[in-house]
Amino acid sequence: MNNVTMKINADDLILAALKEDITSEDISTNAVMPQYQLGEVDLICKEDGVIAGLDVFKRVFELLDADTKVTFTCRDGDVVKNGQKLGVVRGDIRVLLSGERTALNYLQRMSGIATYTRTIVDLLSGSNTKLLDTRKTTPGMRLFEKYAVKVGGGCNHRYNLSDGILLKDNHIGAAGGVKEAVKLAKEYAPFVRKIEIEVENFTMLKDALEAGADIIMLDNMSVEDMREAVALCRGKAETECSGNVTKENVAKLIDIGVDYISSGALTHSSPILDLSLKNLHAVR
Amino acid sequence: MNNVTMKINADDLILAALKEDITSEDISTNAVMPQYQLGEVDLICKEDGVIAGLDVFKRVFELLDADTKVTFTCRDGDVVKNGQKLGVVRGDIRVLLSGERTALNYLQRMSGIATYTRTIVDLLSGSNTKLLDTRKTTPGMRLFEKYAVKVGGGCNHRYNLSDGILLKDNHIGAAGGVKEAVKLAKEYAPFVRKIEIEVENFTMLKDALEAGADIIMLDNMSVEDMREAVALCRGKAETECSGNVTKENVAKLIDIGVDYISSGALTHSSPILDLSLKNLHAVR
Amino acid sequence: MNNVTMKINADDLILAALKEDITSEDISTNAVMPQYQLGEVDLICKEDGVIAGLDVFKRVFELLDADTKVTFTCRDGDVVKNGQKLGVVRGDIRVLLSGERTALNYLQRMSGIATYTRTIVDLLSGSNTKLLDTRKTTPGMRLFEKYAVKVGGGCNHRYNLSDGILLKDNHIGAAGGVKEAVKLAKEYAPFVRKIEIEVENFTMLKDALEAGADIIMLDNMSVEDMREAVALCRGKAETECSGNVTKENVAKLIDIGVDYISSGALTHSSPILDLSLKNLHAVR
Amino acid sequence: MNNVTMKINADDLILAALKEDITSEDISTNAVMPQYQLGEVDLICKEDGVIAGLDVFKRVFELLDADTKVTFTCRDGDVVKNGQKLGVVRGDIRVLLSGERTALNYLQRMSGIATYTRTIVDLLSGSNTKLLDTRKTTPGMRLFEKYAVKVGGGCNHRYNLSDGILLKDNHIGAAGGVKEAVKLAKEYAPFVRKIEIEVENFTMLKDALEAGADIIMLDNMSVEDMREAVALCRGKAETECSGNVTKENVAKLIDIGVDYISSGALTHSSPILDLSLKNLHAVR
Amino acid sequence: MNNVTMKINADDLILAALKEDITSEDISTNAVMPQYQLGEVDLICKEDGVIAGLDVFKRVFELLDADTKVTFTCRDGDVVKNGQKLGVVRGDIRVLLSGERTALNYLQRMSGIATYTRTIVDLLSGSNTKLLDTRKTTPGMRLFEKYAVKVGGGCNHRYNLSDGILLKDNHIGAAGGVKEAVKLAKEYAPFVRKIEIEVENFTMLKDALEAGADIIMLDNMSVEDMREAVALCRGKAETECSGNVTKENVAKLIDIGVDYISSGALTHSSPILDLSLKNLHAVR
Amino acid sequence: MNNVTMKINADDLILAALKEDITSEDISTNAVMPQYQLGEVDLICKEDGVIAGLDVFKRVFELLDADTKVTFTCRDGDVVKNGQKLGVVRGDIRVLLSGERTALNYLQRMSGIATYTRTIVDLLSGSNTKLLDTRKTTPGMRLFEKYAVKVGGGCNHRYNLSDGILLKDNHIGAAGGVKEAVKLAKEYAPFVRKIEIEVENFTMLKDALEAGADIIMLDNMSVEDMREAVALCRGKAETECSGNVTKENVAKLIDIGVDYISSGALTHSSPILDLSLKNLHAVR
Repeated sequence: MNNVTMKINADDLILAALKEDITSEDISTNAVMPQYQLGEVDLICKEDGVIAGLDVFKRVFELLDADTKVTFTCRDGDVVKNGQKLGVVRGDIRVLLSGERTALNYLQRMSGIATYTRTIVDLLSGSNTKLLDTRKTTPGMRLFEKYAVKVGGGCNHRYNLSDGILLKDNHIGAAGGVKEAVKLAKEYAPFVRKIEIEVENFTMLKDALEAGADIIMLDNMSVEDMREAVALCRGKAETECSGNVTKENVAKLIDIGVDYISSGALTHSSPILDLSLKNLHAVR
Repeated sequence: MNNVTMKINADDLILAALKEDITSEDISTNAVMPQYQLGEVDLICKEDGVIAGLDVFKRVFELLDADTKVTFTCRDGDVVKNGQKLGVVRGDIRVLLSGERTALNYLQRMSGIATYTRTIVDLLSGSNTKLLDTRKTTPGMRLFEKYAVKVGGGCNHRYNLSDGILLKDNHIGAAGGVKEAVKLAKEYAPFVRKIEIEVENFTMLKDALEAGADIIMLDNMSVEDMREAVALCRGKAETECSGNVTKENVAKLIDIGVDYISSGALTHSSPILDLSLKNLHAVR
Repeated sequence: MNNVTMKINADDLILAALKEDITSEDISTNAVMPQYQLGEVDLICKEDGVIAGLDVFKRVFELLDADTKVTFTCRDGDVVKNGQKLGVVRGDIRVLLSGERTALNYLQRMSGIATYTRTIVDLLSGSNTKLLDTRKTTPGMRLFEKYAVKVGGGCNHRYNLSDGILLKDNHIGAAGGVKEAVKLAKEYAPFVRKIEIEVENFTMLKDALEAGADIIMLDNMSVEDMREAVALCRGKAETECSGNVTKENVAKLIDIGVDYISSGALTHSSPILDLSLKNLHAVR
Repeated sequence: MNNVTMKINADDLILAALKEDITSEDISTNAVMPQYQLGEVDLICKEDGVIAGLDVFKRVFELLDADTKVTFTCRDGDVVKNGQKLGVVRGDIRVLLSGERTALNYLQRMSGIATYTRTIVDLLSGSNTKLLDTRKTTPGMRLFEKYAVKVGGGCNHRYNLSDGILLKDNHIGAAGGVKEAVKLAKEYAPFVRKIEIEVENFTMLKDALEAGADIIMLDNMSVEDMREAVALCRGKAETECSGNVTKENVAKLIDIGVDYISSGALTHSSPILDLSLKNLHAVR
Repeated sequence: MNNVTMKINADDLILAALKEDITSEDISTNAVMPQYQLGEVDLICKEDGVIAGLDVFKRVFELLDADTKVTFTCRDGDVVKNGQKLGVVRGDIRVLLSGERTALNYLQRMSGIATYTRTIVDLLSGSNTKLLDTRKTTPGMRLFEKYAVKVGGGCNHRYNLSDGILLKDNHIGAAGGVKEAVKLAKEYAPFVRKIEIEVENFTMLKDALEAGADIIMLDNMSVEDMREAVALCRGKAETECSGNVTKENVAKLIDIGVDYISSGALTHSSPILDLSLKNLHAVR
Repeated sequence: MNNVTMKINADDLILAALKEDITSEDISTNAVMPQYQLGEVDLICKEDGVIAGLDVFKRVFELLDADTKVTFTCRDGDVVKNGQKLGVVRGDIRVLLSGERTALNYLQRMSGIATYTRTIVDLLSGSNTKLLDTRKTTPGMRLFEKYAVKVGGGCNHRYNLSDGILLKDNHIGAAGGVKEAVKLAKEYAPFVRKIEIEVENFTMLKDALEAGADIIMLDNMSVEDMREAVALCRGKAETECSGNVTKENVAKLIDIGVDYISSGALTHSSPILDLSLKNLHAVR
């Protein structure tokens, strides 16, 4: 994760997470360790997967104490194995204890997402179809979760309601039709935006193409209809299909030829990757 | 969720979630709907489970526009069924569209946690063992996730590092032993805190009881040892056992007689409960 | 300005502006007016122009006191005339006095931008060329300034570095060439983004078109070269020309046929539109 | 700008400006430059004027990355010339690219204000009349704009409603007269405040002097009346005249002998000073 | 306290105080009272004194729940007696319980300050000397503490370092002398500021008067010297004397004729006024 | 004070205190000292007492300028004497001047609390009774005030409403009785909480013990009744007595045998300890 992103966009969130976990002080640690003691602890992988979020893990400790040194023997996106030592945190043992849980909460969740994403990306390999995330992220975690999707080999859909246009049935209804909706969006949106529109049948699809939509989201269509729709769009617009895609059911979509498949499960239902800090010891 | 908790503790987090999703404006909605239009949309359940977070769902819309009315036909903790209509949101259609994703992101995740918790709580029924959560929550979501555990029938462990004492191996090492650690904690911690300590063998256990620990966490013990440890603690201290407890493996712990079982999976790996907003329509 | 945008994105900024002006209390007002007194004051136009920011003006007073009533006899985008009464603010006179300056500071600046924008838009009328703003906005004012540009008849370029791609010479250099830069951007950026690239000569232009850039920014070219470049892009990419465009010099660009002209002057050098609050009087 | 002012008062504003421009990440830069690369870029003046805000320009880059080095060959208040190289920014090229626009947005605006202020100050040279700013500043920019006025040779009027007393017609009306208003203000305001009052005629002026006002603002008076009023105040109170003062019309006020002339145009209508970053190149 | 001051300056502080007391939820209350229950509680005075901060007390409850009604039978500045009922709070009993401590913490401290201030003001009655506060306030409480001083009959000195000039020995040393210091301050400070300077002997005093200082602070002088100094200043500058003034020792300063006496004890060492909420009962 | 506590919990509060004192700039200092000047100043004790808050004092200067060096010749909890030099602050003289008041405001108040606490703790020496603080702290200062109590030799009661259970008469009433209240609290509260309940007579006391309350607060009882109540609780629950305890009246409670005595006066009515910065001088 780029340092600028970290300082401008991630730091506030990480600090808030630390404050959620320490509202007055870490009582257990302060009770038994009144003084500074240099120490080290290992970051250990306890499950096979794809690691993501190492910079965030590191930043947790740096924000607690700028003198903490965190070194890794792997990089975001690497496949990691159960039992593998991934890095070392060195600093005041009190900092290591107070930051442990928050650092792992980030790293485990981000790595869980990257791992799950990689699984589906691998299933899509050989096709030209790319995997997209959605806005079905955990409140307050979008920056980290969308980054993890990219680390896992997925692509990002729009970040939020402000930086992408997606005209759904209600927008179309309000505008008075597909063509009107696309027209209004072209007039209103910053000119660097592509216009994406959700269609449910071939009439809507044709209207969308005619109106100059850039991306067509195919919604609620049978596999056969999607295949035909994708063919109609070729050379005219990009295509996306959505709808409860998981690693269990993505297979049926692979040979449709759609440009993108989006899956909310990447960010809302990935289990974490099990990681832990072990072998904490004093260093003299 | 109590109104005071909502105003003092939840509102800031919900607003931050809305700002994460709307950094300048909701372009799609603003492009096609320049004017106020009263409308309604239904909250529909798409999967069987336990609902949790209705007040948070409602608050999302109220924070966008105080005039939005949200009514429910169920209450937190209710079992809900695929296809069931759970409530109605009524207000400016633009507000309904702009708030939909954030409101569902909360409700789906909280309900997923409540559903998963209820499953394990049901497995424990008949025993005197209670189910606990942990601090393995999503950064920024602890308030909501711990609430969801309670709605699902679980109990809350400490909220964070500031409001509970848990002396782990590293604390014990730093103090110079189990007895010393308990003694230091009793001296240092606010007197309303119980002292919990993690033990790995019977020597540590006896020291802990002798030193007057209030709660013993049994770590890394065989089922047989745990059974014996629990017997030793009876009448002297409460007992907790931890360690990768999931709905798949909780069965083996049921008849040990331990007071509490804690499970990180409740908050870090529950899949969401599928919910959606449907049938948006203008109201005149 | 949409209510959701106001609550989620503008309110914090407006409150910060009020706190900038009132760090402990409004001493002058509190010294002479210890008690509530209902009153009214008129919003008067003192210079011909285009009004923009009425909702923001209103919101200043509402944030000071929710009971303040602000009514207008014009709407954003209307041409207003010297001497025209534009609206009335009614409420506690102390609120009217304490909010006056902040409310006018917003409204005057936003109207100044709308007025200046309208002047250039009018100069472009008859052509198919649209006017764009830039990121040369006042720190902390982008939301309001870009809105004012739209009210004046201009279009918005990207909102910020996070929601639009614009590859400049340094990006191209870092990537190793135009084609490489476009390729990298297509891989990295969320798929809803158009790719814009700045070119300085015809070689770069051809590379950009070949690589599939969506928008070509023509930089540092003679008028003749721009005309030729625009012709080459037709049907392949949109075109933008930039560079110190003001109402004094825009004429020479009108018949080039470029899709967009961007002007930093809209937001960085528009003079304000003179407005004032007059005839404050008590109401009984 | 003093370091304490920068840390306590400016840093939050600068960070907010950076967050306005980078809500998730700088996509263009991150797409083409995944790795750290040391580089340099020159700060070039493109228009004659007075420079102001160099510390703020520098701070933008330091807040993005503390390792960025910014060196200048001029100081705030210096006259700078078109084509002159004013300084160098050295650091991670990604930081230089991500911070460029925000840094220039501050420096250009502040230098524009200093330049405009200097022009009027020069017109007043030879007289004993000093130039004042007003509260007609851009919301969120007052700290920077008032500083720029001082760099340009102007003086600051009160910072905001909390740190200065200015009794206008409405305050006088509420108090029941000039004498009553001055009396109330003397009783209420912290004793370190001077009392300024706005008068429109000689009756009010005499009352104000009698009541012991420290500063008389002459409002809506003819040049002849102002001259007489100033004479009446000599030795008894300081005098200020206000009202749409610009560089075009200030001449008529020069020989009145007034102590201060205030001009809102300094901060609300100064055009920016054109500056840019050029010659970015890698350093090895 | 003026409503504008409350909303713009006090609300954030009061909310922060509530969040300090409720970091996740009010467990005791939520455990026993899961449902809304309307109730009332009386505000009772338990010690004679001067009441101050009623609006702040009220605001605490309103911020927790806008439907809470707080009514008073006294006003800020009133003398209150042990046993007197001062008001009633009516609303959800849970809100009454959760807000009680924070509301009383404000009201007791503010009333303690007003009471102590009134005691000294009364001792000064008959003289022309006024009582001033200082910047020796509790961090985060200045707004409330300075207001309480005024309620008690005292006057406010400068609010903070930004809105008043006070040149102390170190400033004088840095400037190179009293005259130089006054001259620099006159040039630098906003023109609405009076210039106050601390002097320790008659040489400094004469320099200060000659340089045109507005206020002379007499420091470390004998009572006799102060008397002489005050006489020298008459008609030329206001005078202030400072230094550990308490109700026990103020008597000796009364007939010196000094304009102002400042006392840090008002805000740093006043004991609270004992108040409590009593007779909470449900209302049906 | 632990570094983690300082960074995560104290820094924001200290920064807010600095912003309260410097809303735009330190005008006096900036007027006379435009340039950096290294200097030193001594921290001097002016009254006998117990020092507390040295780290906070130091942090004020570090937050203004990370290059400031603060060294002490004493530690928190030390008895200090009138005239004793406690430390030295070395850095830019402007930083020393701008930070002086805020740093002393913290240190004086915290040391005042530690001093007062120590006095009562000394009065209790020889007994087994410990001294507790309460939630009667200054809004925004609880972290610092509770720390000071501990430095003075006292113990902390619960930190706030979220981390301790205390069932008062109103909670008991709402629950329907002592036993019901204890039962509800045991079910609702995180299991690491002790349950404390306030009782007014022996019936309530017996119910509380029977229901398994962990701590009994004796309220409104005669000394004789308290003695009897304490005897009844021995071996079953801890005991606390409360109610306007000060150093003047604590004696009568010493031999009752109660485990804890709580005193609000520690934090709400301790006078400050007089301290000052002296001998500021330039260093070359």
